[in-house]
Formats: sequence, structure tokens, C-alpha cells
Amino acid sequence: MIEIARHIIEDVVNKAIEEDIPYGDKTTDYLSSIKDCSARGFIKAKERFVLAGIEVARFVFEKVDPLVSFNPLKKDGEEVDNKEVIAVVAGRAGSLFKGERIALNILSHLSGIATYVRRISELLEGTGIKLVDTRKTLPGLRALQKYAVRIGGGYNHRFSLSDGILIKTNHIRMVGSIKDAVEEVRKKLTPFIKIEVEAKTLEEVKSAIESGADIIMLDNMTDEEIKKAVKMINGRAEVEISGKIDEERIKRLKRIKGINYISMGSITHSAPSVDMNFEILKDEG
Amino acid sequence: MIEIARHIIEDVVNKAIEEDIPYGDKTTDYLSSIKDCSARGFIKAKERFVLAGIEVARFVFEKVDPLVSFNPLKKDGEEVDNKEVIAVVAGRAGSLFKGERIALNILSHLSGIATYVRRISELLEGTGIKLVDTRKTLPGLRALQKYAVRIGGGYNHRFSLSDGILIKTNHIRMVGSIKDAVEEVRKKLTPFIKIEVEAKTLEEVKSAIESGADIIMLDNMTDEEIKKAVKMINGRAEVEISGKIDEERIKRLKRIKGINYISMGSITHSAPSVDMNFEILKDEG
Amino acid sequence: MIEIARHIIEDVVNKAIEEDIPYGDKTTDYLSSIKDCSARGFIKAKERFVLAGIEVARFVFEKVDPLVSFNPLKKDGEEVDNKEVIAVVAGRAGSLFKGERIALNILSHLSGIATYVRRISELLEGTGIKLVDTRKTLPGLRALQKYAVRIGGGYNHRFSLSDGILIKTNHIRMVGSIKDAVEEVRKKLTPFIKIEVEAKTLEEVKSAIESGADIIMLDNMTDEEIKKAVKMINGRAEVEISGKIDEERIKRLKRIKGINYISMGSITHSAPSVDMNFEILKDEG
Amino acid sequence: MIEIARHIIEDVVNKAIEEDIPYGDKTTDYLSSIKDCSARGFIKAKERFVLAGIEVARFVFEKVDPLVSFNPLKKDGEEVDNKEVIAVVAGRAGSLFKGERIALNILSHLSGIATYVRRISELLEGTGIKLVDTRKTLPGLRALQKYAVRIGGGYNHRFSLSDGILIKTNHIRMVGSIKDAVEEVRKKLTPFIKIEVEAKTLEEVKSAIESGADIIMLDNMTDEEIKKAVKMINGRAEVEISGKIDEERIKRLKRIKGINYISMGSITHSAPSVDMNFEILKDEG
Amino acid sequence: MIEIARHIIEDVVNKAIEEDIPYGDKTTDYLSSIKDCSARGFIKAKERFVLAGIEVARFVFEKVDPLVSFNPLKKDGEEVDNKEVIAVVAGRAGSLFKGERIALNILSHLSGIATYVRRISELLEGTGIKLVDTRKTLPGLRALQKYAVRIGGGYNHRFSLSDGILIKTNHIRMVGSIKDAVEEVRKKLTPFIKIEVEAKTLEEVKSAIESGADIIMLDNMTDEEIKKAVKMINGRAEVEISGKIDEERIKRLKRIKGINYISMGSITHSAPSVDMNFEILKDEG
Amino acid sequence: MIEIARHIIEDVVNKAIEEDIPYGDKTTDYLSSIKDCSARGFIKAKERFVLAGIEVARFVFEKVDPLVSFNPLKKDGEEVDNKEVIAVVAGRAGSLFKGERIALNILSHLSGIATYVRRISELLEGTGIKLVDTRKTLPGLRALQKYAVRIGGGYNHRFSLSDGILIKTNHIRMVGSIKDAVEEVRKKLTPFIKIEVEAKTLEEVKSAIESGADIIMLDNMTDEEIKKAVKMINGRAEVEISGKIDEERIKRLKRIKGINYISMGSITHSAPSVDMNFEILKDEG
Repeated sequence: MIEIARHIIEDVVNKAIEEDIPYGDKTTDYLSSIKDCSARGFIKAKERFVLAGIEVARFVFEKVDPLVSFNPLKKDGEEVDNKEVIAVVAGRAGSLFKGERIALNILSHLSGIATYVRRISELLEGTGIKLVDTRKTLPGLRALQKYAVRIGGGYNHRFSLSDGILIKTNHIRMVGSIKDAVEEVRKKLTPFIKIEVEAKTLEEVKSAIESGADIIMLDNMTDEEIKKAVKMINGRAEVEISGKIDEERIKRLKRIKGINYISMGSITHSAPSVDMNFEILKDEG
Repeated sequence: MIEIARHIIEDVVNKAIEEDIPYGDKTTDYLSSIKDCSARGFIKAKERFVLAGIEVARFVFEKVDPLVSFNPLKKDGEEVDNKEVIAVVAGRAGSLFKGERIALNILSHLSGIATYVRRISELLEGTGIKLVDTRKTLPGLRALQKYAVRIGGGYNHRFSLSDGILIKTNHIRMVGSIKDAVEEVRKKLTPFIKIEVEAKTLEEVKSAIESGADIIMLDNMTDEEIKKAVKMINGRAEVEISGKIDEERIKRLKRIKGINYISMGSITHSAPSVDMNFEILKDEG
Repeated sequence: MIEIARHIIEDVVNKAIEEDIPYGDKTTDYLSSIKDCSARGFIKAKERFVLAGIEVARFVFEKVDPLVSFNPLKKDGEEVDNKEVIAVVAGRAGSLFKGERIALNILSHLSGIATYVRRISELLEGTGIKLVDTRKTLPGLRALQKYAVRIGGGYNHRFSLSDGILIKTNHIRMVGSIKDAVEEVRKKLTPFIKIEVEAKTLEEVKSAIESGADIIMLDNMTDEEIKKAVKMINGRAEVEISGKIDEERIKRLKRIKGINYISMGSITHSAPSVDMNFEILKDEG
Repeated sequence: MIEIARHIIEDVVNKAIEEDIPYGDKTTDYLSSIKDCSARGFIKAKERFVLAGIEVARFVFEKVDPLVSFNPLKKDGEEVDNKEVIAVVAGRAGSLFKGERIALNILSHLSGIATYVRRISELLEGTGIKLVDTRKTLPGLRALQKYAVRIGGGYNHRFSLSDGILIKTNHIRMVGSIKDAVEEVRKKLTPFIKIEVEAKTLEEVKSAIESGADIIMLDNMTDEEIKKAVKMINGRAEVEISGKIDEERIKRLKRIKGINYISMGSITHSAPSVDMNFEILKDEG
Repeated sequence: MIEIARHIIEDVVNKAIEEDIPYGDKTTDYLSSIKDCSARGFIKAKERFVLAGIEVARFVFEKVDPLVSFNPLKKDGEEVDNKEVIAVVAGRAGSLFKGERIALNILSHLSGIATYVRRISELLEGTGIKLVDTRKTLPGLRALQKYAVRIGGGYNHRFSLSDGILIKTNHIRMVGSIKDAVEEVRKKLTPFIKIEVEAKTLEEVKSAIESGADIIMLDNMTDEEIKKAVKMINGRAEVEISGKIDEERIKRLKRIKGINYISMGSITHSAPSVDMNFEILKDEG
Repeated sequence: MIEIARHIIEDVVNKAIEEDIPYGDKTTDYLSSIKDCSARGFIKAKERFVLAGIEVARFVFEKVDPLVSFNPLKKDGEEVDNKEVIAVVAGRAGSLFKGERIALNILSHLSGIATYVRRISELLEGTGIKLVDTRKTLPGLRALQKYAVRIGGGYNHRFSLSDGILIKTNHIRMVGSIKDAVEEVRKKLTPFIKIEVEAKTLEEVKSAIESGADIIMLDNMTDEEIKKAVKMINGRAEVEISGKIDEERIKRLKRIKGINYISMGSITHSAPSVDMNFEILKDEG
């Protein structure tokens, strides 16, 4: 399993804590009779989904109170059934209440992404086509969202504008031609840098092939156009399909030979959260 | 229109910039022939939606390059038609390319929320029932998301655990009874603090009324139960409906007299993004 | 006892350490013969006071050097006598010297507040009137200062401008009337939001009552005016007394029936520090 | 006049804004009829005092809203009379309300220090004795507080543990003797480093002189002891008086020849705030 | 010219200011007679070098005092002669003194790198071999140092561990073989990701070719070995030479056909600073 | 040994980690077969040098992964021979790969400084002259670099502009004379503040002596001028030599009696890194 850098988890969680507990949890703080009781909290699924973010949830509780102990019963990537317990959290009741919403918000969102990605990835199984994400992520959450994509069985396209060359229609229009754009970029090339070119028509595909691009993104093309484009490319560049992809479309695209990647923005910007809750019980004395 | 605190916008945007441009935009930086050209970018709607976040988008471009000028043609809260231009951004081409994705990610997400909220709010028009959000937001984005809710015509429930007293089933189970919980909390009461109590059964509603709670949240009740509960309460407390709300349900609930608030987590955790794009054109010399 | 959010303690302490030890403690660092000796430090009261902040002091030493062990002999809220030992800190001499001033500055300031609040709270004992603080706090220290108020037996008024509605004379003058201001605000009302209105004359009290405000702040009134105002209000709103409050005044005010809160800015902006010192002894080898 | 580093002002003000306006000013935000009106705010003294921090106040309003204009009528160090206007702030009403409390909290605290310091400094006028502050400051506010001391006519002792060598009783007890401590430190000496030694008895003064210390701090001595100590020292080291200093004591100490500095912790840890208010008026249209 | 992201410049400069002016510039602050005089500062070269970092220097002065005006006479990448003026800075004398050392430290370091890189790049002119940098940079300064490399005419290898796949001897030893390592990695491949393999012997070069690596790094090989390796590879992968490179070696390596990149750690970790100074003159009144 | 403040180490290391591992280590993360293997890494010298920064290296690995154990075999200040093992790091292979470059970059740089300083310091042994550093450090690294100077046997001149008074030619030219400048500064003097004056000619030395400066910096003088200046000063002020110092010069200067300090900017801005590597071995199962 591919981890998330610790400093990113810390950053996101610290920010969420400042947001949700700027001055303590008034409800729990005012309920002095239970605040310091030893208690146990159970994170429970309320529907079937693919889990993602369990270690971030652990970090939430441990940050809120270093004395809390967090015991996951499921691992990221596992499918969880409705009503299954995902983790047991033990510690002072006040600390469980404080961490609850932050942990659940993160788990529900990341598991939502992983679940959505898993469903689509399974459609592509055996085809060799990889489902990849995009830079259409929510501000501050990119690393976590891309992690959830991997957990769901998808792959990560570039993380940032610093990661690789993607010459888009906007660039090409300004430079004048695909050929000129690729040539200009190539002079700066250094180890690790590949060139991807966006093509919206078959003519552009032709230019992209001639320019020697490493990857060609077929953007907003019909299935028919894609079939023709793939034939034209014929292995001389990798092929990425992009624009207006949904599950029905995937079922058709998977039959086209020669596609390497299908990218979907919706897996990070519009995956619905999954449902879970947190049940807290006082330890018997 | 209610603004977002500047320091929150700065925080979110700075984080997004670090994320997306850690070491510059390799594509544009390598295209030296166009990088410093004077250009114009057009943010265009690709579907019909309610705009939210235009001032955050301005901040993105101005932060990336203080010499860029950002000219909004629409204001937050306005409905934008498919193909309409939302804003024109003028400046060096390189700076437009750098700000593009960050600005669009934020605009699409916030407008997605505003659009979803507007649709539901309109169902409630004339009923006096207010649609309110929850703390089910994405980490680091709460203030922006709650702003989008307001823009859509919804109202904000509490922003954090420090904002008010909400005694939930987990608390009540530990304390022993609603009455004891409310009494304990009341001793600490200070100006501005209201007490809300969660009730899942009619019996709990009865206890909540007797406890003198200011607001009673009817959680996961059927329409029938809600009708009975509202009658029992009869104005002695405000009433909030919560749990399993969707548009169909709203159409039924709006006919029940005595409801003050309906809260929906999905408006912040699962509103789908709306579609827009950015077209960049070189200024003629 | 109500805690302070960990991230706030971290923030304040980190800032204080950067301030006081930007490049080490030259004196101790140059005294190589003692710097790494095992030693014991005793925090001692030099007058009688109510302790507040002991866990912040612990955090200071643990942050300066994670190998230091901090053993409190007193708890926040306890009265400490002159010459009593409050805590014993064990570890490398260099680390004790580095944490000393920061820890004592915080402890003396917070205990100063708690001590002052305790004295005034005791005057109100048995009356049901609550002593509340204000937003007149020092920048960056609000959460800690309000914590000290609670430790002293006082209560917290709002923490920030986001916490509740307080319509002051400045607002009313601009809007035109109390009635209009309250009506305008009421349209936006959401769960947890109460409305407090400031009144400086009996006429304004009358308007405030009619507007249906939840709380009425009688600002800078004489005892006589207060008595009349309270009678007029007669339980239809909570009553807060504010402006020119000192101990002598409290003794008079406590006899007036119908007051819910008395607020004092001086408890956070002008409470004098209490005196304590730190004695460091080398452990015998 | 000696300025404060910009980054420190930014730090303190940003923290204060996060504290006071985490999610906007609900009162003003809800009063839509006045929120965006053009208005004018007047900062007025409510007692006589020495002003300090006016540029920090300007920074507060400009940070809250860059469109606000801030016009000071008084400068730091000037004496302000009761009822005098200190500054006029012009801009949207909402922005004036948001900056009000933060600006006033800072101004009242810093002016409180400057006023207290001015009163004491004047007692020392003509004596050549300098009133100096200590490291007994509030966490995060040291640079601002020490600035206020300078404005009041006082002088700054060291800013941090990195600034100079001060060998205190705790150090001496561990090393064994003043002579050994000074000798050990002297080996490390580099440009700019002076050595100050704390002495509590005349015997210690004797050792301090022999050790060649640059400055001797007479700590907690009676007036008689100080007279003797000063005679013994006779110009061979600078002399600082410390411990239990108040105005009455200053009047006696000022007559003793040979004192260079008198240090007082109370000027930073216990100076009471001064009183001022903020009156906001709508611009006539 | 390729820019540095603004947020990185801000970060580095803010940190440097906190470091160098924690509490103001005592010397200038104490010289009240000149502190606020209008003055002009001249940054002058004291040897011949390639300029890099002039916009960072501008940022330093503008951050220290927004009223300073900074007028560069040279641009990054230009060669500057001994005694030439690089920039004129106009503003209050105090602000010039405060920015001086920070600006010069950055300019001297970055120009040192650019100058060193320029000298070596020129040796490679016309060969098609690109001089590339490494991750052997100083903490916190990577983006600035890599910028200076580009200014000098060099190219940037990867910026971070997230940028591309480099399978080194340490990895290969653990996995068992180059072939297995490349195969394992290839399964995860996504757009933009190239695979580079480190080879220390000709045998390893053979395996690397067979594995289908995109780039082969010949590490610590003799000139003879490199010649053989390049022949074996024969265009099937790009070739990077690494380890023990200096100017003499470059002169020999440049004659070998088939090398794409030569990487040198010393250009970022050991390039000596260049010499410049700052002359400040009072404006005549 | 003099330590570095923990918060500075944290700051530098966190920044370096964000820089080098923004989104994980793709190579290691993709090599799933070895990523979680238990392994051991050996930091080995590849030349002879003086070690500095070993505790910072420990911090790097512990921050990357708290489960890693770091076992230093050498201490800062020790001389390490070519091929000697400096530290053994045990933990998950993935974590060792992630920390490697950051730790080595810091160690190589700081050890480079310590090694260079040691060599020069040894030339001065027995003369009583102290080698001191300057403010010519790299942004963000001053505290670490000055620590390495101490480890090498050098001494620290001032850390910042807030540390002491250094009146330079630029100041003197503006004020008019050394005498006036020193007099003006003296009025503000407070405990711990010494005055250093820069002198470039013997005439200036004369003025500096008459002004009563505590330290006189002889800047860019020839050996002959220095000899005359030292005679003129004759112990009435401390003497610092500055400008164009290298090892050959040091050998001549050490014979001149009356010099207290020699300062060299090159020890921090231009010391070449030393060479070391990191060998990672899988633990046998």
C-alpha cells in the first residue's frame, strides 16, 4: 500500500482541528460528569464501501489526545459491509467526542472516492487500461484524494504543474502549431520529463504523432473518433482518453484496443461520501 | 451578501498554490515563446449553475501574479447559463496558465454546492422552513463551503464544537437521561448559549420538552413520527429535522407545520462539481 | 475542569520559545560544566494565589526538552500558599534554565487572572449571578485567558464575533432603531443564535424588550437605573450588567434581583500577575 | 522613534484576527442594511494616557479590509487627553466593526504600558538612571511590549536568552562560585558579549567585582545594602537594581549615586490597560 | 527566463528576515539622526560573475519596507563586471541597512551557483550534452538553487522523490535484480513517469538495457567504461553520467558520443559565493 | 557542546521534507516488494572530516517515520576517517530511502563547515586569537551553520542585527563622524550592549579609540596597517580583523600581538560539502 507523507496528514488534520474545535467542545466540556470517563467508541459502516483513510483517522484521535488508543479492525482497501465495525477507539469520553466528526468527515470522503474508483476500475479489469485521476481535486486535499484513488485501484496522473509536460489546446493555439510547441519544449528536456499533447481532432492527432509526443490525450472525442485515432497512433505514443467519461462509456471504451489510460475528474471532484457513524459507550467501572 | 474572512481565503489559496505549483508550471515555463505574452483568459460556464467563489478566484490569480487583472462579469449568487463568460483575466500568459486549475477547482466546487442548495431551498420557499448545513464538511474547507451554502440560499448551522450545545444520543446514553444532561449543562450557561437535544423517539421528544431544551433535533424519524413530535412540542422549542433527507422527502416535509430547520449533510459533503472551462487567447500586438 | 485545545497551547508555547530562545541560552550554553548535569527545579509561590496554567507549564518544559519530567504538586483551581512548591521539574540543568522564564510568565499571568476572578466570584456566591468575561483580551492569548477565567470560577461570554449576535449602540444608530435591527437579524437566525441588545437608557431597555431580544445588556447604567430596568424586563430577557464594574460595585449589584450576568473587561486586560520563582538544584551524584 | 519589525506586527495581528473573526462577524454580517454602507469610525480616549501602537492599529484595519483608510491624529509617544480623537477610520461599516475590538485591545494594552513607564521614567529624569524592562513579558507579545516601554521613555534590557550573559544565583550555586562561573563563560566570549552577575549579598557583590563582571545586578537588596554595594563597586562595573521596585521606592533610589539601571517586571506583566472607545457613524449620502 | 514560484520566494525571505532582524537593527535604530533620512544604496560587484536572484533581492527590500523602491540595472543571466552597479535601492536609510545583508547573502550565493554552472556549461557547448543538477541541495533552498542552475545555463534533474523513478544500487540489491525491479515498477506506471536505472558495472548496464529502462545512469565509471557502456546502449536509452565530475573530466567526457546528461552535485552543494557590496549614500536635501 | 534550539531543527527539517517528499518517494513506493522490509542503513564517510549535525540527521529519520531507530557511532566534533561508519539507521526500507538524501545533505554541509573551521582554528591554537563567523550565512540556515562553526572550534559573532551595535563605514559617512555616531548610540545604551566600530584607515582607528568604542574592526587593512593599528589601540578596545582572510594570511596574522578576533565570511558562505554515502541492506529473515 502506498503511504501519504506524514507532513501532509499533519497539515490537513491540524487545520481540521482548528476548524472544528477552536475553543473546545462546549457540549462535552459542560457535561463534567462524563467528560473524563473512560469510554470506547465504535466507527461503524452504515452502507457497503471500500475503506480509505483509516491511518488519517488514527492520527486525528491521537492528535486530539495522545492518550487515546486507536484500534483499526479493517485496513485501507478492504471492503466493509453495512454495520461492520471499522475501528474501536478507547480513551476519555471527551476526547472521543472531540475527534468524532473530523475523523468521520475524512474517512467518509476518502472512502467515497475509493469506492467509486473501485467500481470503475473493476470494469477495466483484464483490459490493461488504467483508470487515472486528474488535477481536478479540492484545495488542500490533493494528496489525500490521490491516495484514495490508489486505494480504490486507480492510478495517479500528475500531482502538479511541476510534474510533466502537458501541452493543451490553449498552449497550441498561442504557439501556432503542435510541432512548434513540442520542438520548443524538447530543447529544455531533462531526465524524467515526458511530453503529452492534447488532441481534439484527428488532424491534431496526426500532428501530435509527427511531433514525437510521448503521450497523446484524446480529449472529448466520440468513440468512433477514438477508434480511428488509436489506429493512426498505432503504438507510437501512449494514449489517454479524457472528457465526458462515465460508467456506461467505460463499458464501451474498454473494448477499444490501444488505450493506455482513461482519466476522470469526477472521481476526485464529485465522488459522493459514504455513510458511517460513531457509537460511544462508557466503560463499565 | 456575507463575506468570508480574508485570512481563510489566503490560507486555502496559498495551500492550493503550494500543491499545484511547487516548482513552477513546467509546460508553460518551457514554452518561452509564449510565457511572457500578454493574454486574456475567459472563464466560461459549460452548464447552467449558481455562481459561488468568484472573489476567491480573483484572489488566486492576484496571488499567482500581482500584475494580473481580474474582471468578473457575474457575481456570487447569480445564475449563469451554459456558455456564458463569468470572468475575464488579463495578464502574462504564464500567469493565466498557473492560476487556471486552482481557480476552476474552487469555483466548480463552491458553485456546485450553491447550485444544489438553491434547488432545494426553492422547494422550501414560502414555508418559513430554513435549510441548514451541518459540520459534515471537508477538512480545511468548512468556511468556504458554508459560504457557498449561504450563497445558495441556505443557512449555517454551527461552525464548530465551540459554537453551541448539541446533546446527542451518545451523550445522553452516558449521562443517563436527557433531563440530567440538560440540567448539568444549564449550570454552565452563559450569554448566547442555546441547548439543542437530539431525539430519536417520541419518548425522547417528551423528555427533551420537559428538560426545557431550546431546540429539539428529530433525528432519523419517519414523516409520521415527525408530525406527532411537532404536535407534542407545539412551539415550546424550535424543531430541526435531520437524517435521510433528499429532494423527494423535502417535498413532503414542507407541508408539516412547526418545523423550523431541515439540515442536510449532503449539501457540503456530496454536492457534485459544476462544469466550466478557461480559454486563453494571445492579445494581438 | 474545562481544558484548552492542545493546538492552542502548542501555538502559544512555540511562539514564546521562538521569542525567548531564538539561538539558545547563551549563559547556560557557555557554562559547560553544569549544562548537562542532572538537576531539579522547584516552582514556588511567592504569595498566596489561585493556580492556573500548570499543564501549559508542563508543555513548555516538555517542548524545550522531551527528556525533562514535570511533576505538578498542585492542580489548576487550587489555592497555593506563599512558599508552597507548585511543581518539581527534573532533567538536564540546561533545559530547566531554558524553560524557566517562559513557564513562569505564563503561570503568573494566568494565575493572576484566576486569582482576581476567584475573589470577585466569591462575592457573588449564592446570588445566582454569573461573572462573565469579555472580548477585551490580549492578542493571541484569548483562549488561555478565558480558561483562567473559568478556573477562577467565572464564566465565558462569547469567544469571537462569530459566536453570537450582540447589537450595540453603534449598530443601532446606523440601522435607525433597535426594533429594525433585531427584525433584520431575526430573518437570518439559525439554530444556536441568540440576540443580545445593548441598552444605555431606560427607553432603550423598553425598545429592547419589545424587540424580543434574548438578552439585554445594561451598559454604563447607575445602580438606580439598573434596578428600574430589571423591573421593566421582569424575566422577559436575560440581563447582563456591563461597564465600570469593580469590587465595591459588585457588593451593591449582588443585592439587585433579576441580574443574570455581570461582565468585566478588567479580569482579562488588567489582572496583575502573581509572584512565583524557580529554584534549581544540582542532583547529588 | 524605534520601529517594530513588520513581520512581528503581521504575526500578532493575524493571530488576533483568527481569534476574533474565525467565521466573520455574525452581528454585522446579518445586518445587511448597514454592512456595506460607507462609514467613519473615531477612536477616542476615555482617560488621559500616553499613546502607543497606533501603527499596529492601522495594520489591523488594513488587514481586515485593504480598502479601509486609517488616519491617525496622534503619534506614538504623544499624551492624549480624555475625549480626544486618536484616529479616524473610513470605509465599509462592516470592516470597521470587524477591526474595532482587535485594534482597541492592542492600543489599550500598549498605551497602558507606555503610560505606566512614562510616569516612572519622569521620576528618574535628570538622574542618568535608566528604567529598563525584563523578560517578564506575555507570550507572543514581547516585541510589542518592549516597543511600548521605549515609547514610554524606558529602555530595553535583553530580548531573549540569546542576547547576553546573565549569571544568576541558580547558576552560581551549581557552578560553585561567581569567580568560576565568570571564568568559564569568559573563555567563550566573542564580540558584543557582556557578562552580568546577580548578587544578593554584599559578599556576592565583592566576588562579582573580583570576577571582572561588566554589570552587577543587585537583587532584592535594601536601600542601605544598595548604598554600600554601589560604594564597593565604585564604577568598576555597571549597576542594575532589581526586585520589589515601585514608585515610592524609585523616589528613594534616585538619590543614590552610581546606579545605572533600575529594572521592573511589572511594567510589562502588570501594567493596567487604558480606556478608549470607538464610535461609528454612517456617512451621509 | 524561468521564474521561481512567488510563495517560495516569500517563504525563504520571510525566514531570513526573522533570522536577521528578530527585534530590529539596533545600530540603525539607535542612530536616530539618520534612520529616517532619504538615502540611496548601490549593490556593486566586487568581482566578475553571472548574476542570479535579482528579483529575490527586490523582494527582500520591499518586504522590509514597502516604501523602498528597487531599481535593477542588470538582469539574471547577465555577466557583471567587477565594480559594476547591479541595482540602486532608494528609501529610508534604516530600511536599506535592514535589507542589505539578507539581499546580499542571497544574491552572492545564487550568483555563485550561476557563475560556476555557466563556466562548465560553456565547456559543453555544441556537444548536445546537458549539464544537470541533483537533489544534493541545501535544506529549504532547493527551488532557488535550481533556478540559479537554469540561469547559469544548466538543466534541472528531478526536484524531489515524487518526480520520477530512479532505481539505485540500494534498491536493486534488495529486490534481487534490475529486471525484477523495473518490472515491478512498470506495473504502476502512469503518464509522465520514466524509469532511470543506476549502473555501476558493464554487466549492470547490460541488465538495465534488457529491462527496458528509459534512462541509464552510469555511476562512478571510468572514461573507458563509459565509452563501452555508451556503445552497448546505442540509443536504446538515454545516458546520464554521474560521480566524480570536475572541469578537467568534463573536457574529456564531452568527446564521447552518446551521452545525454552529465550531473554534478557540487554545483549546488559547494559552489563558492561571489563577492559584492552595498554602498549607502544620504540623499542631498 | 552547545546545542541548537529544537524549534530551529524542526523548522529546517520540516521544510526539507516538504521539499524532497511532497508526494512520497515514487521509486520506493512502487517497489512494493521491499518497501516494508526491515532494513539497516549505514551512513559512511567517503573522506576524512569533522562531523557536525548528527542529531539533526537523527531528527530527519525520526520525523519521516517515528518507528525508525537511529544509532550514531560518532559524535559532533569527532574526526571521522574515510570509510568509517557514522551511524546505523534501522527500520522499514521505505523510510530509510525517504530520509537518506535530506539527512546526507544536512550532514555534508554542516560537516563541511566544521571541517574547514577546524583546519583554520588549529592554525590559531595557542595564540589566544579567536576565529569568529559573520552574518554572511545562507537564508534559513544561520543557526545550523553557526552551530557547525562552534563544533569546528570557531566562535560566533553576532546572530542578527538585534544583537549588538556595529557602526560601519556606511553609517559613519551618513552621520558625519565616528565620534558623533558613537555618542548618539551611547545615549540609548542598555545592559549587554557593546559598541563596535569599523575602521578602514589608521585615522579612523584613531577616531574609534577616542570615541571609546568597545571593539574596533580593522576592515580590509594590510598586515602593516594592522600592526600599526594594534599598537595605537594598545588594549583600549578589543580588536577584530576582517576582510580578505585565507589560510596563508592567517599564518601571518597569528604572529601579530593584540588581535582578539579574526572573522571570515567564507566559513559559512563557501565551505565545500564533505562526501559521505548511505548503504542500505535488507535484514535477514
